[in-house]
Amino acid sequence: MALHRDAAGAVEHGRALGALRPRLPGWQLHDQVRSQRAVRGGRARVWVPRLRSAASPIRRPRRLGDLCHRSAQSIRLGPRVDRTSSGPADLGAGPARWQTPPGPWPTLCGMPCLVVHGGAGTPPAAERQERQDAVERALDAGWKEMRLGALEAVLAAVRCMEDEPSLNAAVGACLNRDGEIELDAGVMEGTQLRAGAVGAVKDVRHPVDLAHAILRDGQHVLLCGEGASRFAREHAVETCDPVLFITDRQLRNWWDAADTVGAVAHDERGRTAVAVSTGGTYRKWPGRLGDSPLVGAGFYAEDGMGVACGTGIGEGFMRLCLCHLAVVEMGHGMPSTEVAQKAVQHLARRVGGLGGMIMIDSSGRPAAAWNSEFMAWSQRIG
Amino acid sequence: MALHRDAAGAVEHGRALGALRPRLPGWQLHDQVRSQRAVRGGRARVWVPRLRSAASPIRRPRRLGDLCHRSAQSIRLGPRVDRTSSGPADLGAGPARWQTPPGPWPTLCGMPCLVVHGGAGTPPAAERQERQDAVERALDAGWKEMRLGALEAVLAAVRCMEDEPSLNAAVGACLNRDGEIELDAGVMEGTQLRAGAVGAVKDVRHPVDLAHAILRDGQHVLLCGEGASRFAREHAVETCDPVLFITDRQLRNWWDAADTVGAVAHDERGRTAVAVSTGGTYRKWPGRLGDSPLVGAGFYAEDGMGVACGTGIGEGFMRLCLCHLAVVEMGHGMPSTEVAQKAVQHLARRVGGLGGMIMIDSSGRPAAAWNSEFMAWSQRIG
Repeated sequence: MALHRDAAGAVEHGRALGALRPRLPGWQLHDQVRSQRAVRGGRARVWVPRLRSAASPIRRPRRLGDLCHRSAQSIRLGPRVDRTSSGPADLGAGPARWQTPPGPWPTLCGMPCLVVHGGAGTPPAAERQERQDAVERALDAGWKEMRLGALEAVLAAVRCMEDEPSLNAAVGACLNRDGEIELDAGVMEGTQLRAGAVGAVKDVRHPVDLAHAILRDGQHVLLCGEGASRFAREHAVETCDPVLFITDRQLRNWWDAADTVGAVAHDERGRTAVAVSTGGTYRKWPGRLGDSPLVGAGFYAEDGMGVACGTGIGEGFMRLCLCHLAVVEMGHGMPSTEVAQKAVQHLARRVGGLGGMIMIDSSGRPAAAWNSEFMAWSQRIG
Repeated sequence: MALHRDAAGAVEHGRALGALRPRLPGWQLHDQVRSQRAVRGGRARVWVPRLRSAASPIRRPRRLGDLCHRSAQSIRLGPRVDRTSSGPADLGAGPARWQTPPGPWPTLCGMPCLVVHGGAGTPPAAERQERQDAVERALDAGWKEMRLGALEAVLAAVRCMEDEPSLNAAVGACLNRDGEIELDAGVMEGTQLRAGAVGAVKDVRHPVDLAHAILRDGQHVLLCGEGASRFAREHAVETCDPVLFITDRQLRNWWDAADTVGAVAHDERGRTAVAVSTGGTYRKWPGRLGDSPLVGAGFYAEDGMGVACGTGIGEGFMRLCLCHLAVVEMGHGMPSTEVAQKAVQHLARRVGGLGGMIMIDSSGRPAAAWNSEFMAWSQRIG
């Protein structure tokens, strides 16, 4: 909320957010200069007055920066970071309001950072601790690979969560309206912007491994359906009988079906990476792809700017290209904590979307925010 | 190129482009202020020096604004706009360099505008006029619907191009490595950000109609494969025998296989819309989705900001989320002519991509640019 805290912050964010420009000096002047030039140049065949009719009002672009005021919406900021160990998520106690944002932060460029989430949704209260424990195990698994780099860390974390029956990815994924499982996954590294993703695969043991194989292959970015399974078989990625993925959780908790698992990392060399995996939404149309296999919608990474991934009803993320927008805003200098809050608020207000996001900005600051009832997540820096 | 033309322009673009911030007054000061706060607040457990080692250099975010200098690359700006009729594209004569950008422009907010392209690529010289003629017919077809709105106009234009055997969409689409046709399409309107898209469908007569049906249905955004065909059958969208799509062009011109057709529109009420359709790339992996069915990669629209669509090797657009980035930059105030040029330059430099883009900014200014040998396109304002 630096926007309203001090003048320096306001100027900084004004640069990044087009919506704020009309309030800043110089904009109106420049507009006039351009209009005058148009007339002098003899090209002004039409002239539209600056003030338009009510039937055709001037619409300013709605960016994340428009959403900077606080509201009573059920959006919470995650726990304070513990730099030596992972921090447990807020498990739903207390009022659903903003908590005090952490910070100000020192620059953390040289420190590795890993953030993992197990999905935003409305699971039964009895299952929340189980999900949180699964996320902690994934954080441990990812952290062990952090010395190899950000990409290896996020792959290990997501692969671990794909084996957790309490989470909606691979084993334990939710069913589509035909009673089948169709899995989506994606992975991206921010140095060369290489990405790989799969959608609607039925028989790949670890969809995130197939996404990684597509990334390494480099010819395509997104494969779906039977073609993706064929790619897996020809590139020695493990396949399996789809019955392996089905547990009794899908029937018990059929209403909680919009969660994804994901991880974002920023290693000590400043490289960023993100990986996601999901079974999608409950009773989805066969062949439906959500945001998880889509670069920019469900995940995005670019070194020097930031890395983000989302969870929730994927269609909202797709329509807003929300992870790409978050990374662009972080690249423009907005801290990750602020971007995360505003992004989920933007999701709710612009398209009525539910979900959560985790992200790390180019300074290595992690953040998480969600507007659903619960999100299991954890982070580690050090 | 207002960035180097006058101080007002430099300030304007500096706000939108994070990469330019270090050159502007205030940024360094603000950075120092934030660092001092971190120390005073007692939270500065680590301190990373501002100057980092060569092994871990500070990487500034690379945005479109970084690419503002001219180069000898084979990128050309489209023809001057003719406000009373469509203008023929440059058919390849002359050196492959920037042409003088049109402008300065008056504000065109209240005027409808339609831009149509038939794909960027390297078709045989003898086919270029044929493609251009097909695009002109599509422009006429779309323009007739413009009174109904931007969405109807782009749908009519793309539906027309899906029937043109000289273009890579529906009839005349290129073959995958199994010798089959798999079609992608997408449509989006910028008022409510509703979108619909289909990927890898084999038997839908007009994929853009199916994308529109998904948009209207509103439950999902992207369906692929057999699930998408099933949606078509259950929602009365015309299906057909896939053999209908195959012409002898695919075998004659197998090397020219990365083109898409698309249209962007901005109607007199300020509403924006975009539609795209393609057969993808030649010898693509079965199940491969390109940028065309992906919101943000191959197309994006948001009223008050702009509308864009791309054509070319889709993977580059996907990795950069290029159409979303272009719309964000237009929303930040950069004119469409400048965004188009920089976007295709960014595509080439950041990921080695080939292709072209058409777009309209919130002031109603159309633009097109491409870095391939040829792009058939046309536009009308009035």
